[in-house]
Amino acid sequence: MTTVPFTKMHGLGNDFVLLDERRNPTPLDPAWIARLADRHRGIGFDQLVVIDADPELDVHVRFFNADGSESGACGNASRCVAKLIHGETGRDRVWMRTGRGILEAVRDGELWTVDMGRPRLAWDEIPLTHDCDTEAVPVDVAGLPRPFAVSMGNPHAVFVVDHLESLDVAGMGSMLERDPMFPERANIGFVQVLDRKNVRLRVFERGVGLTLACGSGACAAMVALVKKDLVDGKATFQLDGGELVLAWDGTSGVRMTGPASIVFTGEISAEYLPGDA
Amino acid sequence: MTTVPFTKMHGLGNDFVLLDERRNPTPLDPAWIARLADRHRGIGFDQLVVIDADPELDVHVRFFNADGSESGACGNASRCVAKLIHGETGRDRVWMRTGRGILEAVRDGELWTVDMGRPRLAWDEIPLTHDCDTEAVPVDVAGLPRPFAVSMGNPHAVFVVDHLESLDVAGMGSMLERDPMFPERANIGFVQVLDRKNVRLRVFERGVGLTLACGSGACAAMVALVKKDLVDGKATFQLDGGELVLAWDGTSGVRMTGPASIVFTGEISAEYLPGDA
Repeated sequence: MTTVPFTKMHGLGNDFVLLDERRNPTPLDPAWIARLADRHRGIGFDQLVVIDADPELDVHVRFFNADGSESGACGNASRCVAKLIHGETGRDRVWMRTGRGILEAVRDGELWTVDMGRPRLAWDEIPLTHDCDTEAVPVDVAGLPRPFAVSMGNPHAVFVVDHLESLDVAGMGSMLERDPMFPERANIGFVQVLDRKNVRLRVFERGVGLTLACGSGACAAMVALVKKDLVDGKATFQLDGGELVLAWDGTSGVRMTGPASIVFTGEISAEYLPGDA
Repeated sequence: MTTVPFTKMHGLGNDFVLLDERRNPTPLDPAWIARLADRHRGIGFDQLVVIDADPELDVHVRFFNADGSESGACGNASRCVAKLIHGETGRDRVWMRTGRGILEAVRDGELWTVDMGRPRLAWDEIPLTHDCDTEAVPVDVAGLPRPFAVSMGNPHAVFVVDHLESLDVAGMGSMLERDPMFPERANIGFVQVLDRKNVRLRVFERGVGLTLACGSGACAAMVALVKKDLVDGKATFQLDGGELVLAWDGTSGVRMTGPASIVFTGEISAEYLPGDA
């Protein structure tokens, strides 16, 4: 093997390199993944997505963070995988197996809808440090209401605010993610309701910082707003990276709709293959 | 045309996308260049390098910044161009025409040496605001000696210091680049002599910030150190991104030797071509 082919994609600026193990099996050494993630010396990505054949579904998908560690599912990446499989097969409904279970993506023109699963609302599932009103967790910050806590596979705290644009989201997020109420830390979302169908959201991601488009953060905010009866069952979320449409009926999985873009395809040079550090 | 091929390279972490106009003429719209430079939604690069045929030399080269504006020559990029032409032709000596004149690159194993031209030492060529001792410009900062000023096609101020690692290079650089003595601002270098053949250098680049490896900053520091008789005519510079070897005889052009790496080749997707914003 002299080169390794890949596809570079993004969903609302959340960017991915996709490798296809079905065609080019590649040793997934964490040090090599971290080297590829380097935005100056490698390809650069938020997550590496490795797709492989699955005996029952369209595709088996694994996700790796930029430090080489394996990660759970990612809504933005799942749309990218679905678009890639659609390009190969023409299928408008793609089933994928992930570390967090089976996931279905459905095409609607240029957009893809992914079922992000049911929210978990019990205090010890989120998790919080102790039992409390999870819809108004005792985390008190001057000028902010108490947050709504929910797990979408990862812990979220959602603050419903009146004036999002004037808030120091990065500063408050870095302080609040480590609040003692969150034993595994938490993603900190700030959401402002514009009307019952439109909201504005910014999310500080646990261990990452302010990001352009946190898919699970949008799901968490949707659950909070539906539970508080502040939006209808379907709403458009304006994130820094673009728009997502969220739908939730109050009981089943949260459905998230958004775009996926192919930026370029490439071949990793022989001097950058694993073991050639 | 459905896709545009490119090569992604770097020299000491200073990274470039190279387009080949000889094979694929591409409209170089500044807005499109800026879109490609986006590290999340595009390919990502410090500079776009566009190579074309030249009637007399091996290649004609143009450089564009990440904001789409055209730029002068870049030492790190020139090594990358030379490596690419070597890969095509096998030539160990590559002549290129740039906006700043004709440039020669010579291969030595995996390394390439580029003649970066003669330094300009007169106060109005650098430029400074008024005539003064250019080897000790009246820019006074507590704990620092006065800097050596020189132009390598762009203005540099070099501070020779004793304890580089303890200095706040980013903070001092952002303050000093706009000192009234520098009417066109200046790149601010901090250099520590380890012995007569080894030095450590960090550079705050004008309008950019602290970078991994500023080639012209290394040339400027070499000129300062030779003029002050602190190094021999050849010295190894340790930069944050790796090592460069600088040679200067005190009169002719400054010669800089360093690596160039091909990371990957790619094809820009049809949905990212110019005009498809």
